[in-house]
Amino acid sequence: MVSAAASPPPSGKPTQDELKRLAAHRAVELVEPCMTLGLGTGSTAAHALDRLGDLLRAGALPGVSGVPTSLKTEAHAARVGIPLLPLDAASIALSIDGADEVDPDLNLVKGRGGSLLREKMVEGAGARFAVIVDESKLVPRLGCTGAVPVEVVPFGAPHTLGLIRGLFHGLPGFHARLRTTTVPEGEQGSEQQPFVTDNGNYIVEMFFDGGIRGDLRDISDRLLRITGVVEHGMFLGMATVAIVAKKDGTVAVMERK
Amino acid sequence: MVSAAASPPPSGKPTQDELKRLAAHRAVELVEPCMTLGLGTGSTAAHALDRLGDLLRAGALPGVSGVPTSLKTEAHAARVGIPLLPLDAASIALSIDGADEVDPDLNLVKGRGGSLLREKMVEGAGARFAVIVDESKLVPRLGCTGAVPVEVVPFGAPHTLGLIRGLFHGLPGFHARLRTTTVPEGEQGSEQQPFVTDNGNYIVEMFFDGGIRGDLRDISDRLLRITGVVEHGMFLGMATVAIVAKKDGTVAVMERK
Repeated sequence: MVSAAASPPPSGKPTQDELKRLAAHRAVELVEPCMTLGLGTGSTAAHALDRLGDLLRAGALPGVSGVPTSLKTEAHAARVGIPLLPLDAASIALSIDGADEVDPDLNLVKGRGGSLLREKMVEGAGARFAVIVDESKLVPRLGCTGAVPVEVVPFGAPHTLGLIRGLFHGLPGFHARLRTTTVPEGEQGSEQQPFVTDNGNYIVEMFFDGGIRGDLRDISDRLLRITGVVEHGMFLGMATVAIVAKKDGTVAVMERK
Repeated sequence: MVSAAASPPPSGKPTQDELKRLAAHRAVELVEPCMTLGLGTGSTAAHALDRLGDLLRAGALPGVSGVPTSLKTEAHAARVGIPLLPLDAASIALSIDGADEVDPDLNLVKGRGGSLLREKMVEGAGARFAVIVDESKLVPRLGCTGAVPVEVVPFGAPHTLGLIRGLFHGLPGFHARLRTTTVPEGEQGSEQQPFVTDNGNYIVEMFFDGGIRGDLRDISDRLLRITGVVEHGMFLGMATVAIVAKKDGTVAVMERK
């Protein structure tokens, strides 16, 4: 099942970056002329952007355009020559993006990179959404391997953090914190400040010991009902296909049931 | 039931503003020394701020402080001498605010003035919430008398507007639009631009012919599930008491069942 379009893995074990490129190139095989694409954000999606740029310049994908999911992707896509459209003007046929985690039902955790809201808007607007990952992102339960991000409005963010903690009160191993970033501060050294999203919001990171147990849609609704929560990084029922590059250099394609 | 603290209505029919003041003064009777208050926004809440300021200056309410629900209220409260706290540091005993509509179950429409998100955060954080209105705000169903506002992120706002319209597709008389504001533009006359909230977001106004029929909590969840929707102006199960100034100058107090 190795993609013909992708470079074959070198002799020996492919690196994680080679696996990301393998999955990305396989996803780009789904692209047809004149399609409008949702363009993902992150290190795996970046390989898809590069590949799309190569194919566009070679004349292999006439009429293809894209809707970026972040300011970073917007700049990258422009650099490699992908024509861009605003979300409002686009009818998105296919989105291609990475994920932090993929569960057996193709539910995802996304947004550890910080751009979950635009990703969710763009990828929710499209007919199909191919998630591209290396094997290490497959998990039995969402939240197994790290943070589940929640985008919150800056006003009252510590209060909102408290309400999120209250939602999971008593759940063993659960904790949540405001995501911070280190800002250089001249002679005084560095300082921790809240991480700010493309939309000017903050991120609360939720951590679950062993992953999220329980009804994901119910947890989603409970989070969204908290005033101050804008969106969360659980992408439920959105990915239609997962393209998974395995350690042995093969690619598995998992369609959503 | 006319409040002793409020000015009696002048002979003849009280004006709407006099009724607003009557309800506001009656609500301020609920305030006790050392309480932290949620301070509402709008023309009715402004009467409560003025009254609180008078009582504080007279030494009648020692230790009272407030959490403002908008930048405008913050400025007004500071001007009349109410000590202010940030939401995070406060344990709010009582919020006092007006509403655009109050239904028989004390569900509210708020935010036609544009500050629904902060109001909802502050008023949801308190133990009690007294809504103060004149009789004209009592409705059989929410959405009867005008817009139900929805706060949305600016990115992809026309797309989000389309999703909101889709939620009520086929509902007779429903329409929705992006709220705009007129900006003076020098020689070219004026220009319409999106209205921007205190949180840097836009407002979608939903209009229902004859008000919202159906399960309000279900409609709330459906709105909140739309990526791009931050909050909406239906305040469900939040007000604990409504203080209603009637045209004849009496005040009715309705406790939530």
